[in-house]
Amino acid sequence: MKRIVILGGGFAGIYTASTLQKLFKKHRDQYEIVLVNRDNYFTYQPMLAEVVAGSIEILDSVSSLRSLLKHTTIYVREISNIDLKERTITLSPNFYHTDLNISYDHLVIALGNVTDFRKSPGGLHEHAFAFKTLKDAIKLRNHLIDVLESAAIEPDPQIRKQLLTFVIGGGGFSGVEIVAEINDLVRLYAKKYPSIIPNEIRVVLVHKKDRLVDKELSPSLGRYAEKLLKKRGIEIFFNTELTSATPQEAILSNQMRIASSTIVSTVPSTPNPLIEKLPLDQIKGKIKTDSFLRVSDSVWALGDCAAVPIFNSSELSPPTAQFAVRQGKCLAHNIFASCFGKELKPFSFKALGMMASLGYRTAIAELFGKIKLSGFIAWLFWRVIYWLKIPGTSRKVRIVFSWLLDMIIPQEFVQLKAEIHNGITHLHYAKGETIFRKGDIGDYLYIIVSGKVEILAVSNEKELQVATLGKGEYFGEMALLNQKKRNATVRCLEDTELLAIRKNDFQVLVTNFGNLREEFYKTEKERLEKKMPILNTGDILDFPKEDPPPHVRRG
Amino acid sequence: MKRIVILGGGFAGIYTASTLQKLFKKHRDQYEIVLVNRDNYFTYQPMLAEVVAGSIEILDSVSSLRSLLKHTTIYVREISNIDLKERTITLSPNFYHTDLNISYDHLVIALGNVTDFRKSPGGLHEHAFAFKTLKDAIKLRNHLIDVLESAAIEPDPQIRKQLLTFVIGGGGFSGVEIVAEINDLVRLYAKKYPSIIPNEIRVVLVHKKDRLVDKELSPSLGRYAEKLLKKRGIEIFFNTELTSATPQEAILSNQMRIASSTIVSTVPSTPNPLIEKLPLDQIKGKIKTDSFLRVSDSVWALGDCAAVPIFNSSELSPPTAQFAVRQGKCLAHNIFASCFGKELKPFSFKALGMMASLGYRTAIAELFGKIKLSGFIAWLFWRVIYWLKIPGTSRKVRIVFSWLLDMIIPQEFVQLKAEIHNGITHLHYAKGETIFRKGDIGDYLYIIVSGKVEILAVSNEKELQVATLGKGEYFGEMALLNQKKRNATVRCLEDTELLAIRKNDFQVLVTNFGNLREEFYKTEKERLEKKMPILNTGDILDFPKEDPPPHVRRG
Repeated sequence: MKRIVILGGGFAGIYTASTLQKLFKKHRDQYEIVLVNRDNYFTYQPMLAEVVAGSIEILDSVSSLRSLLKHTTIYVREISNIDLKERTITLSPNFYHTDLNISYDHLVIALGNVTDFRKSPGGLHEHAFAFKTLKDAIKLRNHLIDVLESAAIEPDPQIRKQLLTFVIGGGGFSGVEIVAEINDLVRLYAKKYPSIIPNEIRVVLVHKKDRLVDKELSPSLGRYAEKLLKKRGIEIFFNTELTSATPQEAILSNQMRIASSTIVSTVPSTPNPLIEKLPLDQIKGKIKTDSFLRVSDSVWALGDCAAVPIFNSSELSPPTAQFAVRQGKCLAHNIFASCFGKELKPFSFKALGMMASLGYRTAIAELFGKIKLSGFIAWLFWRVIYWLKIPGTSRKVRIVFSWLLDMIIPQEFVQLKAEIHNGITHLHYAKGETIFRKGDIGDYLYIIVSGKVEILAVSNEKELQVATLGKGEYFGEMALLNQKKRNATVRCLEDTELLAIRKNDFQVLVTNFGNLREEFYKTEKERLEKKMPILNTGDILDFPKEDPPPHVRRG
Repeated sequence: MKRIVILGGGFAGIYTASTLQKLFKKHRDQYEIVLVNRDNYFTYQPMLAEVVAGSIEILDSVSSLRSLLKHTTIYVREISNIDLKERTITLSPNFYHTDLNISYDHLVIALGNVTDFRKSPGGLHEHAFAFKTLKDAIKLRNHLIDVLESAAIEPDPQIRKQLLTFVIGGGGFSGVEIVAEINDLVRLYAKKYPSIIPNEIRVVLVHKKDRLVDKELSPSLGRYAEKLLKKRGIEIFFNTELTSATPQEAILSNQMRIASSTIVSTVPSTPNPLIEKLPLDQIKGKIKTDSFLRVSDSVWALGDCAAVPIFNSSELSPPTAQFAVRQGKCLAHNIFASCFGKELKPFSFKALGMMASLGYRTAIAELFGKIKLSGFIAWLFWRVIYWLKIPGTSRKVRIVFSWLLDMIIPQEFVQLKAEIHNGITHLHYAKGETIFRKGDIGDYLYIIVSGKVEILAVSNEKELQVATLGKGEYFGEMALLNQKKRNATVRCLEDTELLAIRKNDFQVLVTNFGNLREEFYKTEKERLEKKMPILNTGDILDFPKEDPPPHVRRG
């Protein structure tokens, strides 16, 4: 029995698997087709924006892999290692501590790319929302509801303004689609909150280049999109990048700072980290294949994680679903051909066109490099095309039902509360930002990972620096004492990375690590002697608190 | 302007608010009605089991509070304090560190009860699922999918068995409803996994008394339910309680241990912790009211958190939706009456009947204390009644659509991945259980909060105790070193409470707390000298790992 293992269940992976299923139909006793994916579903990305908007049901944007691929063995696990020498894939443990190895005869790498803020500068990892997976869409929807609910009852005008400002980084396809959805959604639902004044809402799109969708569409459609979005109240900053995010601000490349609780970044799509480690030729982080989508005798690659040449062209395939689907079919044919000594086919395809939705039943589209559509016609076209491309008939029918139902009874603006974060949270603050103020509620201890902060005593609205703290030092330990309000203000003297540890968790650590306890009391004593206002004596009291810290509600 | 503040958005809270809205219609300029709730929606609990089963859409089980209560000011926040002296409610911070105070003239406490495992014995808090909120339902659904996916590819028969065993504690209403749904769901979907053999699945219901729904229904219906559930393959243990849960076992009061990855407890409903602290007369943790639902001049209470006498009866109201709804209407009338010097009405109501769904279109019902229904007729009755009780017309219509659609195209078995837990996790293990084995993957450090473990060197399948560790000691620190597999087995000598700290988080702590680092290295050196096999030298290497630990996937 030979085994063909496909890694990844995106467009590339599922089209490879379904074509292989058909081709190997008569050889099922000799060839097993295996697909490994993190989730047990395929995410139909074009529909994710509609999940945020609520116009389709949450689960309508995904399809069960098992239903789509009836003759493929599905492994739902994280991949922890790819060993090309031993021809073995290792999957991470799930319910038990043991991992799982799968050997292969043919390996198809279709791992796509991932949103990876880790390499991004300041705070995007901690405080910006991504928009790529169903989880991202749900998180963003919940967050938008959260900020509106908070703004509706917030008395402080500064905080209200911050809550009602939305900053989106990146003016490519996903950027314009998500900015349009957020803008529509927030302005629509804000009407349900009598205390929110519509012109308090600010939606900002930040784009690196001087026109929108510059990579994907021609200038005239980019300018059409720009005009349309501006008409709907979206501010657009061109030639600017979103460089940094903190719990309270978006910081742009022109040094502008925008107070905002909602920062979405559509920019960083990097190859899957698993690919970085592979000893394969790469072009800009993508696996180099020949024109048959082959990497070696037993390894194949396609989709967004592969650099696939287009036959009779000097170009590489662009990272779009259209190409992934055709590559999948071609690759499956070539595996079949190589198993049975037939001739391989080179990959060749010309893009049919590109489309982006702009909300409120408008879109832009460019077909066959010539025909340009915009407005309602383009939107209708966009919907029909994407609907046709939804894999599986039952999913298609369900989505039509959802659309119909949404026209009659729009979905309500209710949250699907995500898990409460706990434990240790990483935070990024920019120079000059205030971490907390005297009088704020204190339930967290902060450790400085890098940067520098000042502790300010406050009386009669005057601030007096009483200490500065740097790397490895901590503050806010009053969170462990029986006192609820902060008695000093802490502000960043530099860009600062912090760890926030919840009261209860730190208490447990202090209780269980003798030396840590000693260090803690020693520091406390020193600070008391120096009369640092942040500190107070008192017993360590245990009162459980389950709320997440204010800054943890973000990305 | 006077303010009536309602705490809680369950049946009691929303019926109070909607009746108040009507009564005070002409007095809106004088009276503000405020409702405070943690979520921005009302959860229709009778439908939660259908969310787990997927027969209605996830958001169909909830209704937006703003849509239900158009003339009520909604505050979506956690309540942190109730000050009866100052007549002020304090709400927890959300996006910023400041709290929010609301003063009241009339306070209505409708906080219901909560699932609180904290006071439960061993491990239920850490490892058992509750079933009360929408979040619980989503978590349970995701978990069920997770165990099936894992079982489908698990080669170890022991672990497979554990994954395919489901233990439910409590044979009251919610217990029988959820055991029926889990049983139906798991057996239905398991068919989609060719590698799962149906008779590997085991569903166990554990009940304290000698018959099901003993509190709610008459013996004959209890026995009917028993027969029906048994016929569908559910094992029932009577006169037994679920006393403890670990990452791998359910432990019963008769000392029986059942290897299981899914433990659901429907038992502990305790009053909201906010109520415990109030200086009010209480009966079994419930606020004592007079027959007018009054606690004092300005404070009122109703629903599951209140002990409300029934007029002309010696009994207190039972904690059901039927009573909450009638109490809400009565209470609203009495507030209105007391504001305008009219006569208060005592609360009086006789339960109409009780019903429970048993899955597969069967149910049991008892009406007016006389009529007993069971099977399909009871189910039809159950559905119609609950459907009628859904607040809001649009929600009613959407649910009918969902039901119809589900009959044509059943919802797919896809997960709605919840957040990944991180940071510090609390774990409970029972005496004799193995925490990890030699050869397992090691990514966590464990601190012993209480209990005792032994470290076992393993060679030629023989185990040799090389050390025992107790409170405050830690093991598994190799998780911090560049080595992936455990080189010893750790087993509990007593019931043990542990903290599991993820590699990355512990690394950050060690890096930032000098004394902790010293302690860590000192211990490591000592253990090396003693030749404890758990330890290995090596540099602390940083490789990020985002997976949750195996045990964290649970409750």
